[in-house]
Amino acid sequence: MGSSLADQVTARLDRARALAADAGVDALVVTPGPDLQYLAGVVKHSHERLSALVLPTRDEAAFVVPRLERPGLDGSGVDRAGIRVIDWVDGEDPHGLVAACLDGAKRVAVASDMPALHVLGLRDALPLATQELATGVLRELRMRKDTAEVDHLRRAGAAIDEVHEQVPGLLRAGRTEAEVGADITAAIVAAGHAEAAFVIVGSGPNGASPHHEVSERTIEDGDVVVVDIGGPLPEGYNSDCTRTYVVGGATDEVVEVYAVLQRAQAAAVAAARPGVTAESVDEAARAIIRDAGYGEYFVHRTGHGIGLEVHEEPYIVAGNTLTLEPGMAFSVEPGIYFPGRWGARIEDIVVVTEDGCEAVNTRPHELLSC
Amino acid sequence: MGSSLADQVTARLDRARALAADAGVDALVVTPGPDLQYLAGVVKHSHERLSALVLPTRDEAAFVVPRLERPGLDGSGVDRAGIRVIDWVDGEDPHGLVAACLDGAKRVAVASDMPALHVLGLRDALPLATQELATGVLRELRMRKDTAEVDHLRRAGAAIDEVHEQVPGLLRAGRTEAEVGADITAAIVAAGHAEAAFVIVGSGPNGASPHHEVSERTIEDGDVVVVDIGGPLPEGYNSDCTRTYVVGGATDEVVEVYAVLQRAQAAAVAAARPGVTAESVDEAARAIIRDAGYGEYFVHRTGHGIGLEVHEEPYIVAGNTLTLEPGMAFSVEPGIYFPGRWGARIEDIVVVTEDGCEAVNTRPHELLSC
Repeated sequence: MGSSLADQVTARLDRARALAADAGVDALVVTPGPDLQYLAGVVKHSHERLSALVLPTRDEAAFVVPRLERPGLDGSGVDRAGIRVIDWVDGEDPHGLVAACLDGAKRVAVASDMPALHVLGLRDALPLATQELATGVLRELRMRKDTAEVDHLRRAGAAIDEVHEQVPGLLRAGRTEAEVGADITAAIVAAGHAEAAFVIVGSGPNGASPHHEVSERTIEDGDVVVVDIGGPLPEGYNSDCTRTYVVGGATDEVVEVYAVLQRAQAAAVAAARPGVTAESVDEAARAIIRDAGYGEYFVHRTGHGIGLEVHEEPYIVAGNTLTLEPGMAFSVEPGIYFPGRWGARIEDIVVVTEDGCEAVNTRPHELLSC
Repeated sequence: MGSSLADQVTARLDRARALAADAGVDALVVTPGPDLQYLAGVVKHSHERLSALVLPTRDEAAFVVPRLERPGLDGSGVDRAGIRVIDWVDGEDPHGLVAACLDGAKRVAVASDMPALHVLGLRDALPLATQELATGVLRELRMRKDTAEVDHLRRAGAAIDEVHEQVPGLLRAGRTEAEVGADITAAIVAAGHAEAAFVIVGSGPNGASPHHEVSERTIEDGDVVVVDIGGPLPEGYNSDCTRTYVVGGATDEVVEVYAVLQRAQAAAVAAARPGVTAESVDEAARAIIRDAGYGEYFVHRTGHGIGLEVHEEPYIVAGNTLTLEPGMAFSVEPGIYFPGRWGARIEDIVVVTEDGCEAVNTRPHELLSC
């Protein structure tokens, strides 16, 4: 474990350095967040005190950390891979310490989630450098999952499927969304997740709001209910799966619209394979919904990449001409939403394979009666 | 509630606008986080999609939001105060929408936690403007708590005191830090917090690492144990309180060092009053620890402000010449740490009053035997 972590960190840093050099970038500066977890196996919350991996293209990596957080690096990838640690105490200027590692750097790429506090602090400490996002470099690594990462995503998928299997027993008329949500939260943790990162129980009109969470609304007979749930496994990789349920019987309108949605979701999954663009997968779902006359009710992109973040590259959206490759993992989740009335969504996570894609979620796609 | 929220938002925006104008800033741009919660009563996670309050000094406020998250604004301060909402859909350029509200702005201040994704996006969308942190303006509002905010902090203090009261019953030789931590986590929620934001159980040598969380270490007889815990109430204001416990009897060394620490903490609390500097409160604690010969083992600042964030302005640290005023709230938490051996810390949250300060935590400061 120790040496394999060291090898993994060394390999990922070398690859990041090479990609940065190809892009003409002189250095990456990565604060705590998923990029840092990916590159250096460091899981830390970003406090107002700067911690950052500094990775010059043509020099050794360094890790700048507040002295009082230094013990937290024990056993991390920084420790195992022998990265030089530069610590600092309250009152010192950590941005100056980063700048001192980057003498002569002209183009500095920063992690996309670095807070403005540090973006502007580094800007001032490196007045001759221009700043850009490290995303362009790091997404090239992070969006192609390796075998171990795909395995984490499969286990996350199986864990959240186990929760959806319990949902029909939890959803019934007379319970509130919040009550159902609390049971689902507990089930997500019981299924092996580190936490429930999001629990959407959108009943009736609330199902028409794609980012609704839960409310005190009491579920009624005949409600269509969107249940979109997920969270990270202890290793950090996330699940994310949506199914739509109906309490009691569905109306003809619901049956008809849902059938369109189900065809759209299946068409997008069928379209996902190496060599096609991300936007073509979006269009595969969108065309079916549009042709059925519901185009204006599909108000979001078809999907998002997933891994250490619930939302990451590649985005399955019009305008994204990225060519899909084996190992890319993302959601396929078209939805149809009638404001103030009801909505429906079906979501699986898929991983692109050599000749198509593999869904890590395997629960039935039919409208499920409770 | 509705109209008082509207009044509060309007008053805070007016005050922010006036302070920004005084500082020569043309506009504030505030993404989701505690600043936005404070100004506009919007509690949202920052996704990769831009949501932002745009507050020009000489024009009306606007709120830019992804269309699919717009329903989440219902009932928020943005909604109640009638702030103009500008929504956008995937594929549009949200940074351009912000820029369009800021025609001619030369100095744009951004929230300190705005992610680089949006800092650099706005930089590119407003090429003629310079960016700076909004902290200079917003801390003037946020660090002076009003009556309602002080009341939230008092309730948070009482809630975490209730948890510390239970700690002696949880800490005993043979249990792991993680087991004790899990019980404390449950007690934090049971005491009325929205969640347990942090749970530090640092036993024996782990107590010497100020930011240790919990481990699988089994607590032993004679261990000194640092317990530093807290979290937000449902309204968003945080608790944060540390007590140090000893399992069984304390050694003479522990008794002697702890007495120094207790005097240092009391001296800093006694020093906290209107008209003195933040650094003088730090020095009040530090001088006592230094004079007793333990200066090198007090490796962090004496305290941090607290409110909607666990760590916010004002920082009680050498070099901070800010003059304290009534309503400022912060921790007073000196510590003494012997690497590899043991550590101790005592922490209360205090609020500056007209002639001194009020501690919102009231548990005994003595080394507590379990």
